[in-house]
Amino acid sequence: MAAPAPTTLHPFDQAIALELQPDGHWLGHTSPAYANMVGPYGGITAAQMLNAVLLHPQRLGDPLALTVNYAAGVADGPFVLQARPARTNRSTQHWVIELLQDGQSVATATAITAKRRQTWSSDEQTPPAGPPPSEVATLESAGLLAWLGCYEMKPIKGTMPTRWDGLGQDSLSQLWVRDKPARRLDFAALSALADVFFPRIFLRRAKRVPAGTVSMTVYFHADASQLEEVGAGYLLAQASAQAFRHGFFDQTAQLWSEDGALLVTTQQVVYYKE
Amino acid sequence: MAAPAPTTLHPFDQAIALELQPDGHWLGHTSPAYANMVGPYGGITAAQMLNAVLLHPQRLGDPLALTVNYAAGVADGPFVLQARPARTNRSTQHWVIELLQDGQSVATATAITAKRRQTWSSDEQTPPAGPPPSEVATLESAGLLAWLGCYEMKPIKGTMPTRWDGLGQDSLSQLWVRDKPARRLDFAALSALADVFFPRIFLRRAKRVPAGTVSMTVYFHADASQLEEVGAGYLLAQASAQAFRHGFFDQTAQLWSEDGALLVTTQQVVYYKE
Repeated sequence: MAAPAPTTLHPFDQAIALELQPDGHWLGHTSPAYANMVGPYGGITAAQMLNAVLLHPQRLGDPLALTVNYAAGVADGPFVLQARPARTNRSTQHWVIELLQDGQSVATATAITAKRRQTWSSDEQTPPAGPPPSEVATLESAGLLAWLGCYEMKPIKGTMPTRWDGLGQDSLSQLWVRDKPARRLDFAALSALADVFFPRIFLRRAKRVPAGTVSMTVYFHADASQLEEVGAGYLLAQASAQAFRHGFFDQTAQLWSEDGALLVTTQQVVYYKE
Repeated sequence: MAAPAPTTLHPFDQAIALELQPDGHWLGHTSPAYANMVGPYGGITAAQMLNAVLLHPQRLGDPLALTVNYAAGVADGPFVLQARPARTNRSTQHWVIELLQDGQSVATATAITAKRRQTWSSDEQTPPAGPPPSEVATLESAGLLAWLGCYEMKPIKGTMPTRWDGLGQDSLSQLWVRDKPARRLDFAALSALADVFFPRIFLRRAKRVPAGTVSMTVYFHADASQLEEVGAGYLLAQASAQAFRHGFFDQTAQLWSEDGALLVTTQQVVYYKE
C-alpha cells in the first residue's frame, strides 16, 4: 500500500492558523508570505481576527459584518487573539475581538455572525462591464511586496500608476483577483480580499505618499452555499475613494463573483501624509 | 438686576447626557423624544456611545471612525456605557465601547479619534444636483414616530412610498436634513444623522417589512472647524443599498454641507424579513 501523499497547507491556511490556549485565547503567528512594506498585509490580519470567531466553539451562524481597527503595526512573530461573544441572539451573534502583542492592544475588531434565511433578494449594485479574466493579463508580482505574490491580480482599470507625475484624475480601480495558488473561497479569504486594493491616493494623485489602513469594515452578502458555487473562481473587485481630507481618505469597494453576484461590500478609512 | 434667562438643553443634548460613575463608567437614559417603533432611534444610541468617548478625560483628537453594533433592543430606561482607550498613539486613539443594561451587552462599538493635519485634500464624491432647501417642502412629522419630530426633513428624491404596491424600482433617497429645533452641528449630532434614512427595502420594494439596523459605520471626513462653518445649516443626505440578500441588506450614504463639502460617509447592514 502506497504511503498517503504528503499534504501541504495552502499559504493562506498556514497564515490564519490559530492554536487554542488553555485560557481560551488563541495563539497565532505573522506569515512571511503575507509580509507588507512594514509588518503584515492588513487583509491577513483581518482574516486572522475573523478566524478566531470562525474557530470558536460557541459560534452561531456565518460572518455578516466585520470591522477591524488597525491600532498599531503588527510586529513579526507571535500574537494573541481574544474573541468574546458579547451577545448571542436567536439568529445573530455579536463578537468583540482583540489582537495583542506583549500584552498591548495592536488591533481591535467587532464581528457579527448570523444565520441566513431564504428571502426576497436582489442586487442593486451590478458589476461594471468589462473583459472576462481570460482576456486580461496577470500582474507580474516577482520582486514586489511579498503579499502581492499571494494573489493573482488582473488589473482592468485604474492600475498602479507607471508615471508618478502628480497628474492623477480619479481613484477608481477594477480588477479580477483570486488567491494564488487558487483556493476555494471562504469567509476568511473574502475578508482578506476586501483589503486587496493599493492605496487610492496613489492613483488619485499619481504620487506615492505614506499611507496605511486605519479601519476596515466588511459586509458579507454571500452565504456559505454561494461561496461554494464560486469555488476557486475569479472575483471582480472595484474600489474608489469618496473624500481625501486632512490626512485621511476613505475607500468604498465591491467584490462580485464571475457570475455577477455581489459577494462583499466594504469600506475603509486610510491614513495618508502630505 | 434681572434674573438670568432660564436655559433649556436642546433635546439632543438631553438625550446624549451621561453621568460619570465612581467606577469610571457612564450612566445614561433613553430619551422619549428619540423613541422609535420599539426602543430608541438607532442614531441616538450611536451618539450616546460616541459621547462616552467625547466626554472621556483621556480622549486624544476628534472622531474619525465609529462602528456601532446593535446587539439587542435598548429597553426604555437607564443604561451603562463603558469606554476604554485600547491604544493611544501619537495622533490616533482606538476605543472599545459597550452599552449594557442589567449587566447584559446591548450594543458594542469601536471608535477612532485622531488629530487632523492640513494636507492635500479633495472630494471625489460630489453632491448630486438638486433644489436648495428653501425650495423643498418640509416633511410633516406630527403623528409619526417620535424621533422623526427631532429632524427637519426635506425629501427631494426617493421619499417614503405612498403606495405600498410592491412596484419599487431602486433604493436611492436624497433629502435636506437638520436637527429640529436647529442646533449647531457637532460630531455627536453627525453620528446620529448618519442613521436618518428609513429602511432602503421599504423604497426598493414599495413594501413594508420588518427591518432594523444591525451595524453602522460612520467615517467623519469633516474636522471641528468645518463643522463650525456648517453651524445649524442643512445637510444634503443621500442613501442607497447595494445588495438585499438572505435577510440582510446594506446601505451606503453620504452627508454634505450646503456648500457641498462631504462631511460624512457611512454604511450600515440591516436585517429584514420576507
